[in-house]
Amino acid sequence: MAEKIDEKKVTPRSQDFAAWYNELIIRAELADYSPVRGCIVFRPDGFAVWENLRDELDRRIKQTGARNAYFPLFIPQSFLQKEAQHVEGFAPEVAVVTHGGGKELEEPLIVRPTSETIINHMFAQWIHSHRDLPLMINQWCNVVRWEMRTRPFLRTSEFLWQEGHTAHATREEAERETLTMLEVYRSFVEDFLAVPLVAGRKSAAERFPGADETYTIESLMPDGRALQCGTSHYLGQNFARAFEIRYLDENNELQHPHQTSWGVSTRLLGAIVMSHGDDQGLRLPPSVASIQAVVVPIWRKADEAVRVLSASREVAGKLAEARLRVKHDEREGVTPGFKFNDWEMRGVPLRIEIGPRDVAAGDVVLARRDITGPGGKSKAPLAEVASCAKSMLQEIQINLYRQAKAAADSNTRTFDDYTKLCAQMADEGGGGFAEVYWCGNPECETKMREETSATCRAIPLNQHNDGGPCIVCRQPATERAFFAKAY
Amino acid sequence: MAEKIDEKKVTPRSQDFAAWYNELIIRAELADYSPVRGCIVFRPDGFAVWENLRDELDRRIKQTGARNAYFPLFIPQSFLQKEAQHVEGFAPEVAVVTHGGGKELEEPLIVRPTSETIINHMFAQWIHSHRDLPLMINQWCNVVRWEMRTRPFLRTSEFLWQEGHTAHATREEAERETLTMLEVYRSFVEDFLAVPLVAGRKSAAERFPGADETYTIESLMPDGRALQCGTSHYLGQNFARAFEIRYLDENNELQHPHQTSWGVSTRLLGAIVMSHGDDQGLRLPPSVASIQAVVVPIWRKADEAVRVLSASREVAGKLAEARLRVKHDEREGVTPGFKFNDWEMRGVPLRIEIGPRDVAAGDVVLARRDITGPGGKSKAPLAEVASCAKSMLQEIQINLYRQAKAAADSNTRTFDDYTKLCAQMADEGGGGFAEVYWCGNPECETKMREETSATCRAIPLNQHNDGGPCIVCRQPATERAFFAKAY
Repeated sequence: MAEKIDEKKVTPRSQDFAAWYNELIIRAELADYSPVRGCIVFRPDGFAVWENLRDELDRRIKQTGARNAYFPLFIPQSFLQKEAQHVEGFAPEVAVVTHGGGKELEEPLIVRPTSETIINHMFAQWIHSHRDLPLMINQWCNVVRWEMRTRPFLRTSEFLWQEGHTAHATREEAERETLTMLEVYRSFVEDFLAVPLVAGRKSAAERFPGADETYTIESLMPDGRALQCGTSHYLGQNFARAFEIRYLDENNELQHPHQTSWGVSTRLLGAIVMSHGDDQGLRLPPSVASIQAVVVPIWRKADEAVRVLSASREVAGKLAEARLRVKHDEREGVTPGFKFNDWEMRGVPLRIEIGPRDVAAGDVVLARRDITGPGGKSKAPLAEVASCAKSMLQEIQINLYRQAKAAADSNTRTFDDYTKLCAQMADEGGGGFAEVYWCGNPECETKMREETSATCRAIPLNQHNDGGPCIVCRQPATERAFFAKAY
Repeated sequence: MAEKIDEKKVTPRSQDFAAWYNELIIRAELADYSPVRGCIVFRPDGFAVWENLRDELDRRIKQTGARNAYFPLFIPQSFLQKEAQHVEGFAPEVAVVTHGGGKELEEPLIVRPTSETIINHMFAQWIHSHRDLPLMINQWCNVVRWEMRTRPFLRTSEFLWQEGHTAHATREEAERETLTMLEVYRSFVEDFLAVPLVAGRKSAAERFPGADETYTIESLMPDGRALQCGTSHYLGQNFARAFEIRYLDENNELQHPHQTSWGVSTRLLGAIVMSHGDDQGLRLPPSVASIQAVVVPIWRKADEAVRVLSASREVAGKLAEARLRVKHDEREGVTPGFKFNDWEMRGVPLRIEIGPRDVAAGDVVLARRDITGPGGKSKAPLAEVASCAKSMLQEIQINLYRQAKAAADSNTRTFDDYTKLCAQMADEGGGGFAEVYWCGNPECETKMREETSATCRAIPLNQHNDGGPCIVCRQPATERAFFAKAY
């Protein structure tokens, strides 16, 4: 049995973060490698997390007034070329269908890398009058971007995502929508996934191809690199012009609408794994865990088994009644210790142990996944197990956020000396977030990227500072920005 | 205004069924044609029906023990060739990706037409012991089959579906699973979509490529043609052999598992439209309607408006509180008559009218979409509107099934004379279902198909009959089968 448990161990996170991450995903059975280069298989335990995440985000998106639709997977190659920056950004990474039904196609089809082009082609058919606006559409689908270096969840040739596309009568309304969705994403990722964020504007170099402005939520991972977790774009009238979308305004004049697009993807699963996992395995926030609490009965003798199993089944029943997602681990032939390790690896937030002495005392033991060792264990009366578990799960959700926030904060530094920043970025700790004054000049950003590998991740929206010299060129700067090496 | 309503009219169903169907889908804004040949756009009103359908079926599938996962969109071309019948069936209709990231691929990738091959490749990695069985996986995804003649929902080059894939230790268990899923589909389509079915076995000619046995649910459409609504396949050990899936049984001997696959698709939306629609538009079963009840306030003078709108808002509030999906149509500038026609076109099951006299009397008028004319109208006390609407929606759900069943029954005939069957199939009414004795000989089926265009749709599972001469060859036959022209 000991071997079996050791087999399940992963490389310690502190020793090799990348190896730890890849091994954890395989061992916890979230995903598997596939025979198609750069594509992964989402296994049931991983897909269940995605389903919980997706259902909640879908609810929040619909609350804003957007409605779901579905557009074709394939896009005529000529569509991509209609918006100049868009084609430049996406053409190098598309997959191309050249044959269908045994024949060569007259015009090759690309597999959507994102759907601005085909959706805006349809918007042009649907939008005629100011009464047709705002038009707010969301789509959950697969997209393909041919990637050379891939990593499970973080960068795969095919991934799952949602992409919202909206059209509005005025610039103001579209800009408001862009920021509304940024805030939907921020609160969702922070509250529901317990992943702390920096939200802000992108620099011109990091903008979505075809957008006038891109906003982002970025999270600092424990290895000191930033992960872009979602983006919201103000597209201006660029796609409206390219796809000839026009509406008659209230004065009977033809206008192009102002547009937005916004998306998050299965990359969020990578954010969850990296932000919360430890050397024992996954640590899933209760909100997205497919199993929130596992009940493990413990006994040695047959007569104990009867009493213990009767009590543990009662506990599982109470938790299910309270609408918690619960698993009763009745497996035979494996030790309680094996079960503990197994569920720790799979990231179940709360373990409830119950043995003969607990039954006699009318107690259960609650063991929190977010606090290791004896400090994470406490007793609760069996009669109150559901309410105790519920409030503990809420605590765990909050604590996972707090722990991740503390880790990110401890790796976030303010710099006003470029040499010190360079030294920090050269550190083997990955660099972390550098909060600096930046004049906004792309040349300073390029210099920083070339010398430190750090790029501008986000320029926070609400700036409360006096201004100071740009970290690179020392010219006056009014805004602080977050720089980091990025995934 | 009158013109506007007429514009909304569709070709009468009795005049041209195909035109009626195509026009209805566009006018009710369920879907739209796309710039990609054979692919449609699912508009929000159509996609909402799919979401309601999908969520309920997903719940029922999970209840059987299957779990959702996600496998790559692309399949190496060589995989398709591993199962001889499978490649023969699907190779002619695949879309092929030959280029990715600007380069020609070493091995072309096909866009999945179904996922048996790639899923069973993964099953071979996951299944080692009898303890790994049964393995029950379901996937909701898009698939592509290059079609020459396409029709919205019924036959499109890309469609959405779920595909279940399971592996079992024994033949008996796999056969039981095949029939369990057939019954899940039958009860779901009959109860939830109100579409009446014939369930049964497929003939060898109509089997899934690579299956030992295919089971089907078939529905007779009002134009006298049958629509295959879902299939469940017993795959035997064919794919297990092709993909070398082996497990150690309890005697430590290597065995191939027995497998199943089963699926339903967005074609079900076509079944709903055809089974229930009429010349006024869609008629959606309350179970899947995104709006179950629409409240239409009626007034002429400003002082009436205040009282009526106050009451109609109260009604809408009561319905929403009772968890009905309700819409309060407060639009100005269009007449009540226009609104009635609009919501009838969109298939809303229940309309609630409220005018000044109703307010004075404390009443509302309930108008059922399933019964046209004055017979479908009744009054209810405003105070009890929620409970009245709820029970009426249940009645509508049942009545839509009854109406569709009566229509199908009236077009289902028993034949023991082949000449009469031929005459019926030549009838402009489309032919309907012919229930006949058939010896099972493929030659008789071929003759029938060539002479009447009718094929064997289903051989019912429970046969209660004495046997008789085969409708074609007059040799003794033991089973009755349903023949029809099919979509």
